[in-house]
Amino acid sequence: MNKPLYLVFDIYGTLFDVTKLSKDCEEVFPGFGSEFSTIWREKQLHYAFVSELTGTYVTFSSLTRQALQHTAFAHELPLAREDEEKLMADYLNLPPFPEVESVLQELKGSFSICLLSNGGEDMLTPLLANANFDKYFDHVWSIDTVRHYKPSPLAYRLIRDRIGQDADVLFLSSNCWDIIGAGRFGFKTAWINRNGLPFESTGYQPDYVLLDLRDLFSLLEH
Amino acid sequence: MNKPLYLVFDIYGTLFDVTKLSKDCEEVFPGFGSEFSTIWREKQLHYAFVSELTGTYVTFSSLTRQALQHTAFAHELPLAREDEEKLMADYLNLPPFPEVESVLQELKGSFSICLLSNGGEDMLTPLLANANFDKYFDHVWSIDTVRHYKPSPLAYRLIRDRIGQDADVLFLSSNCWDIIGAGRFGFKTAWINRNGLPFESTGYQPDYVLLDLRDLFSLLEH
Repeated sequence: MNKPLYLVFDIYGTLFDVTKLSKDCEEVFPGFGSEFSTIWREKQLHYAFVSELTGTYVTFSSLTRQALQHTAFAHELPLAREDEEKLMADYLNLPPFPEVESVLQELKGSFSICLLSNGGEDMLTPLLANANFDKYFDHVWSIDTVRHYKPSPLAYRLIRDRIGQDADVLFLSSNCWDIIGAGRFGFKTAWINRNGLPFESTGYQPDYVLLDLRDLFSLLEH
Repeated sequence: MNKPLYLVFDIYGTLFDVTKLSKDCEEVFPGFGSEFSTIWREKQLHYAFVSELTGTYVTFSSLTRQALQHTAFAHELPLAREDEEKLMADYLNLPPFPEVESVLQELKGSFSICLLSNGGEDMLTPLLANANFDKYFDHVWSIDTVRHYKPSPLAYRLIRDRIGQDADVLFLSSNCWDIIGAGRFGFKTAWINRNGLPFESTGYQPDYVLLDLRDLFSLLEH
């Protein structure tokens, strides 16, 4: 492929591991921490989808909190106000996947490195700052500016509105629904498949499948 | 409440039990039948949501089959063509929840009894005929005619387009996302909560909560 000028990354689940909310989930819900964070994430996504589908925009930080409260309540797990704040703060301190920083470091300068996230600026700015990742990104875009969640085409259009119709884009995400949305919008797509899963069977297939971000180097050389 | 003229029911999970696909799921996947049908259902919904969100309409029978194939493949469960057809046919032979028929029988004549389903006519017509339920419905509407899935407002609008702006509607569903969509569209809503779960915490709350359809009688008397 030609070297794409713009590498546009998803953030949650793609660069940062949302299933590992530090040790706090386990501390708040002993023996249930890992399962809890997975269910919380699924609920967060479901709420974002329902928000977009029903045409009623709710900010990502609001629906992340709603999903947290609901997950605790539905499993009859008491959630003290203090613990709720601690877990919400964890979303600003997610751990990156192991290879991410060194790959961004190596890409920096050769490509325009961008983010398009369902998270708002209030979540993205501290997360990137806490990981000391902000220095790697040329553009950090939040769908909050257009109030439409991925995988709506109205979210991906934000990229075209910023960089023009002709710029080469490679969109990268670990989330199948995100890859499907970006691909149907018209971007070249690379699915980061760290868990060796089959891609969703909706008729759309990603242009490239990478085991982790290091696979980008061989892809970008061709 | 005033007696609503139009009672509009969802079908899958509301009138018919999608988690009990006869005995065939268990026969095809011994020991995994109940879990399989639950995952299949979740995948089917996810595909319908992604279809709507990405603006690429795929019929409900197509995405139900894609969800079936993917669920089997992702769990490394071989699915013979013959078994696939048997399980797809089960969607036309779902069991109704126990109280449904007697309630429809009693409502018939006093109210306009309607359906709005994400399923296409190719799925709804045989399902209703096989259960001998078609005689209870004054209107059976599929979103396939507008090619927009619930909970998009474009799906619920179909009802208004058919019955006019002024008719009284009570929308009934067991699916929270469906109730949220119908409520945000502007309908009065009744959530059928057979499993005693908390309603999703998205800010919207249903107008009424019923334990099963028999609760409709006391609601409609007021």
